[in-house]
Amino acid sequence: MRTVAIRNIERAAAETVAALQEQGVATVHEAQGRSGLMKPYMRPIYPGACIAGSAVTVLAQPGDNWMLHVAMELVRPGDILVVAVTTDNTDGMFGDLLAHSAMAHGVNGLVIDAGVRDVRDLTAMGFPVWSRAISAQGTVKATLGCVNVPVVCAGAGVRPGDVIVADDDGVVVVPRRSAARVAEQGAARIANEAAKRERFSAGELGLDMYGMREPLREAGLEYLDSIEDFEAD
Amino acid sequence: MRTVAIRNIERAAAETVAALQEQGVATVHEAQGRSGLMKPYMRPIYPGACIAGSAVTVLAQPGDNWMLHVAMELVRPGDILVVAVTTDNTDGMFGDLLAHSAMAHGVNGLVIDAGVRDVRDLTAMGFPVWSRAISAQGTVKATLGCVNVPVVCAGAGVRPGDVIVADDDGVVVVPRRSAARVAEQGAARIANEAAKRERFSAGELGLDMYGMREPLREAGLEYLDSIEDFEAD
Amino acid sequence: MRTVAIRNIERAAAETVAALQEQGVATVHEAQGRSGLMKPYMRPIYPGACIAGSAVTVLAQPGDNWMLHVAMELVRPGDILVVAVTTDNTDGMFGDLLAHSAMAHGVNGLVIDAGVRDVRDLTAMGFPVWSRAISAQGTVKATLGCVNVPVVCAGAGVRPGDVIVADDDGVVVVPRRSAARVAEQGAARIANEAAKRERFSAGELGLDMYGMREPLREAGLEYLDSIEDFEAD
Amino acid sequence: MRTVAIRNIERAAAETVAALQEQGVATVHEAQGRSGLMKPYMRPIYPGACIAGSAVTVLAQPGDNWMLHVAMELVRPGDILVVAVTTDNTDGMFGDLLAHSAMAHGVNGLVIDAGVRDVRDLTAMGFPVWSRAISAQGTVKATLGCVNVPVVCAGAGVRPGDVIVADDDGVVVVPRRSAARVAEQGAARIANEAAKRERFSAGELGLDMYGMREPLREAGLEYLDSIEDFEAD
Amino acid sequence: MRTVAIRNIERAAAETVAALQEQGVATVHEAQGRSGLMKPYMRPIYPGACIAGSAVTVLAQPGDNWMLHVAMELVRPGDILVVAVTTDNTDGMFGDLLAHSAMAHGVNGLVIDAGVRDVRDLTAMGFPVWSRAISAQGTVKATLGCVNVPVVCAGAGVRPGDVIVADDDGVVVVPRRSAARVAEQGAARIANEAAKRERFSAGELGLDMYGMREPLREAGLEYLDSIEDFEAD
Amino acid sequence: MRTVAIRNIERAAAETVAALQEQGVATVHEAQGRSGLMKPYMRPIYPGACIAGSAVTVLAQPGDNWMLHVAMELVRPGDILVVAVTTDNTDGMFGDLLAHSAMAHGVNGLVIDAGVRDVRDLTAMGFPVWSRAISAQGTVKATLGCVNVPVVCAGAGVRPGDVIVADDDGVVVVPRRSAARVAEQGAARIANEAAKRERFSAGELGLDMYGMREPLREAGLEYLDSIEDFEAD
Repeated sequence: MRTVAIRNIERAAAETVAALQEQGVATVHEAQGRSGLMKPYMRPIYPGACIAGSAVTVLAQPGDNWMLHVAMELVRPGDILVVAVTTDNTDGMFGDLLAHSAMAHGVNGLVIDAGVRDVRDLTAMGFPVWSRAISAQGTVKATLGCVNVPVVCAGAGVRPGDVIVADDDGVVVVPRRSAARVAEQGAARIANEAAKRERFSAGELGLDMYGMREPLREAGLEYLDSIEDFEAD
Repeated sequence: MRTVAIRNIERAAAETVAALQEQGVATVHEAQGRSGLMKPYMRPIYPGACIAGSAVTVLAQPGDNWMLHVAMELVRPGDILVVAVTTDNTDGMFGDLLAHSAMAHGVNGLVIDAGVRDVRDLTAMGFPVWSRAISAQGTVKATLGCVNVPVVCAGAGVRPGDVIVADDDGVVVVPRRSAARVAEQGAARIANEAAKRERFSAGELGLDMYGMREPLREAGLEYLDSIEDFEAD
Repeated sequence: MRTVAIRNIERAAAETVAALQEQGVATVHEAQGRSGLMKPYMRPIYPGACIAGSAVTVLAQPGDNWMLHVAMELVRPGDILVVAVTTDNTDGMFGDLLAHSAMAHGVNGLVIDAGVRDVRDLTAMGFPVWSRAISAQGTVKATLGCVNVPVVCAGAGVRPGDVIVADDDGVVVVPRRSAARVAEQGAARIANEAAKRERFSAGELGLDMYGMREPLREAGLEYLDSIEDFEAD
Repeated sequence: MRTVAIRNIERAAAETVAALQEQGVATVHEAQGRSGLMKPYMRPIYPGACIAGSAVTVLAQPGDNWMLHVAMELVRPGDILVVAVTTDNTDGMFGDLLAHSAMAHGVNGLVIDAGVRDVRDLTAMGFPVWSRAISAQGTVKATLGCVNVPVVCAGAGVRPGDVIVADDDGVVVVPRRSAARVAEQGAARIANEAAKRERFSAGELGLDMYGMREPLREAGLEYLDSIEDFEAD
Repeated sequence: MRTVAIRNIERAAAETVAALQEQGVATVHEAQGRSGLMKPYMRPIYPGACIAGSAVTVLAQPGDNWMLHVAMELVRPGDILVVAVTTDNTDGMFGDLLAHSAMAHGVNGLVIDAGVRDVRDLTAMGFPVWSRAISAQGTVKATLGCVNVPVVCAGAGVRPGDVIVADDDGVVVVPRRSAARVAEQGAARIANEAAKRERFSAGELGLDMYGMREPLREAGLEYLDSIEDFEAD
Repeated sequence: MRTVAIRNIERAAAETVAALQEQGVATVHEAQGRSGLMKPYMRPIYPGACIAGSAVTVLAQPGDNWMLHVAMELVRPGDILVVAVTTDNTDGMFGDLLAHSAMAHGVNGLVIDAGVRDVRDLTAMGFPVWSRAISAQGTVKATLGCVNVPVVCAGAGVRPGDVIVADDDGVVVVPRRSAARVAEQGAARIANEAAKRERFSAGELGLDMYGMREPLREAGLEYLDSIEDFEAD
């Protein structure tokens, strides 16, 4: 692994990022065809946060947060730090000092496939984090990694500059080049869902709304009157 | 697997369900002899909810929520949807649209051995869910399963019409036919615990309250004065 | 395993315990050289609690809480119950009755490498618990274990009388004999961090604050202008 | 939980059991419509064993193998012991002494949702075991459970007398009453697969053998010439 | 997600693939700078196999092996099938029929982030598989995925045509474009290790061979004569 | 954490170690009262090895095997390397080069709560390893740890010089000071088990051999004739 830090990355347009943030993870994930979702072990340290931003990626050695300091010089306001580790690790690579640094540089939040600590302070500061674990385990600064190279974070591929959207449902990655198109599709989806929501609330069944009765019959679904009919068989 | 949907199920009496809900999971679980508890990975999406109701069971293919739509036509007010999957899966099979549908039909809540999404919306709507995971991962509607057949959900056997009780301590299944008897035993237990709680609060030891000193002695418990006595050995 | 209960243990000084509580888990863990942290699966049942106290240790058989009653006679106000189990187990060994007993005897909280139940009640009572699981599964009182012997709890060695500190970041064990020294080092650390926090908030980079630029260069970190430079290679 | 031992159970016909054993787990599982498979964490202690037999079920407390002794009196030659535990547990509830007892009574093997020990001896004796874990952790004999009641073992419901088939692919449960029909369907399946195997070996594609080309086209599969066509998009 | 199958992929040179196979996973992983390793839950179904080949990638829905049939038309002799699933899944997507098909088309082996079945047959046939699980759970053919698009498999990014090396130590991915260079570095490494191996076997210490004594001293390692010196502190 | 290497440790007598090795893990674990067993995720890289020896302990940073080189200077023939890591980690900290070094210095085997690599070579060399994982992931040599301090390895406390016994059933730790007594108790146990084994093989039931019928009756076990009697209730 060449140990490099890449200074300049391309970012999606601010209005695209804002649109994706507004749509939230579940809609964005559907809008881009159900891809790009990180594994569900990535959980927010407090409920209610919903952020979007451009990924500044970090690849770290387990138990070593040195590269986070390198990354901090390369962020721009509105970015999100995305930290991958070379193997599964839960150490608390990020705490309140780094959060103060990140906030001072306008970072929107942290997505880390490892641990985070000082979560009470981070919650009080309103600095949102999605992580694999909460752990006070401190880390060393001894081994190089990379900043702004493509990484796999919690099962999802992330290239620097990709748009990250994170909320209570998890974290989704939108490739930078398709971000504008996904934002459009997400907007269409939201418009469409409002009408469906109303019909569902009025008691209409999905069976009817989506025209499922015939496909179910064709697929072979049998209706029986009672469990006795089933177990008699 | 025959792919069937069973239209009619027997349910426990409403007052039995209400009594079990009032008693809560820990008491009901004890009252029926410490059986029927789902595995502890089933967690509520928000704290404080406590529900009970008759199980309408769903058996689904991983990543496929088609049968949830079939089930929605078969629920009655007060029911609880119980979703089992043919293999371990965390996909978000249920979200805010289905929650609107479920609430419109009077469903009390969802117990799902898979994922759920739109949890912020569900929390705002007050629709309680106990799940294995929170995940935005969307699902297809392509493969049949079953509605209202016996299933294993999170390690517990559930027959349609069994009473489900769920709160912050987890989820317990009470077989329909023994529900009334369990509710009685639970009521007795609660009466009994109030007295114990008072004595514990007054400082009485379990050793004395339960008459444990003699059994402990017989079982061979040694009291030593200090760790030195132990480690010298 | 000899099944013993040790009546008397030595405890750290009250002011040392108080100082460690004030510092919190992350600071104490660093102050003692990054050792003694329990595994991060130990989570509080409600956020915001921060406790410290002397460990009264319990070693239990899976699914059996008999020894907790033995321990309750041996605690002193300010102690923390630390429960280890002979194998991995999630049963709910502790609930609201034992919590009333514990509070009546001045116990500060519970750290248990197993399950806990009645969490809504415990939260309402303000009795803090760090556990591996939340589970209503009831337990028997049939097999002896030990009280106040050295145990391994959630990956950390604990001797009776060691100081336990627990907060939202997890649980750390401070050996009794080094507790005063650790408290001093923690205090120094906190003083030192306040200054750093201010500098980070003012935008100073860790790269400069910690003098990392030269070590990074020596370690071989390459700066590239763009991802194209990296991928061209 | 009533703690009972049921003396007499109905068993499937010997020729049905023999047929299912011959077919093996994967075929039987398909033949009964892809149901009844235990979770894949159930692994054999040595490769190559393939057994079938009638389930004598045991429900045990974690860390307690008392009920295994009760079960041993109730087995008949050709049976398989199926052990479920009230909560997840890996203790070594069964070792070489019990294996000698089991072999003396004609038991075909053990399926245990917990641990097993003395695996080198068991391998040498040719006593096959499928378990969740291998562990030397010894167990007590202190708390009652049940023999020959319905249990959930490794995610699958098992009633006493159901047919268990176990091989290198895992463990499947066939309800006693449908065992003969499943054995017939399995036989048909095997006949059918031999022809397919030959065609596959001759290079015929599944696309053609199963007539998938048209359904794939209708479902919307696009063929592209190269990755450039995909990524240009 | 566009559901596409890409017909043509570029592959590394046969001699490069052969060289990487000869070097094995551990050497190749080091030679490319400790990157590209799949997570260690990927285990071979039988010991001793060591393969290398060009990746034909498959992205599948959980519990659905339809795309494996599509892929089988697009493989060339010497390729390795690499199967990723949209969420964590252990279903047995591949068994002896598909193995006969794969062998007929010259496929070297299968790397699948899901389950595999008929492992006894596959072992007898000598068709090597690295998988997350062994499971008889059958799958449907209902939902499209992709063939020959970039995927994340067991934590590693794989592009179609990348070289896969798999042996008893796991599975490593070598990007196609750097494969020749990695093979050279691997060869150098092997030459270098032979000398070291001899010196180690002669009793020379790593401390001396790698000149570690001075760096250890500088890093602050203290040598003490006995544990008493340590614990007295 | 002071980073120290302790040169001299006390070891148990060679005949005690030999006796414990002969008895094996399950017997030794029982003989010392069912304590000291490592968690069952510790598995041998090949079956059939059975070793015992004095522990030379290593505490390492995740992903860093520097201290293994320090330890290699401090071993004596017959020792076993016991490696603990400050947090859960699966990196391959040990491979064929270190195995050559270990064998040259007479080390009996390795017990490592992390990963190991080159397992085919190690198997061919007959160097036994019990580990948490098999992984080719290489490690750095950048951060100090300790040699010959007390550690927690896979859930068990180990002091340098304690006797380690490892076989197909797992790994057990015997405190050095009680090793001779445990070896005696193990010998008694083995003598005792031979007689039991014979009686079990002759068909005698544990119910009779251990006199369990009366205790079971007193504990309340009910015998029922058939499942109908149970389910009628």
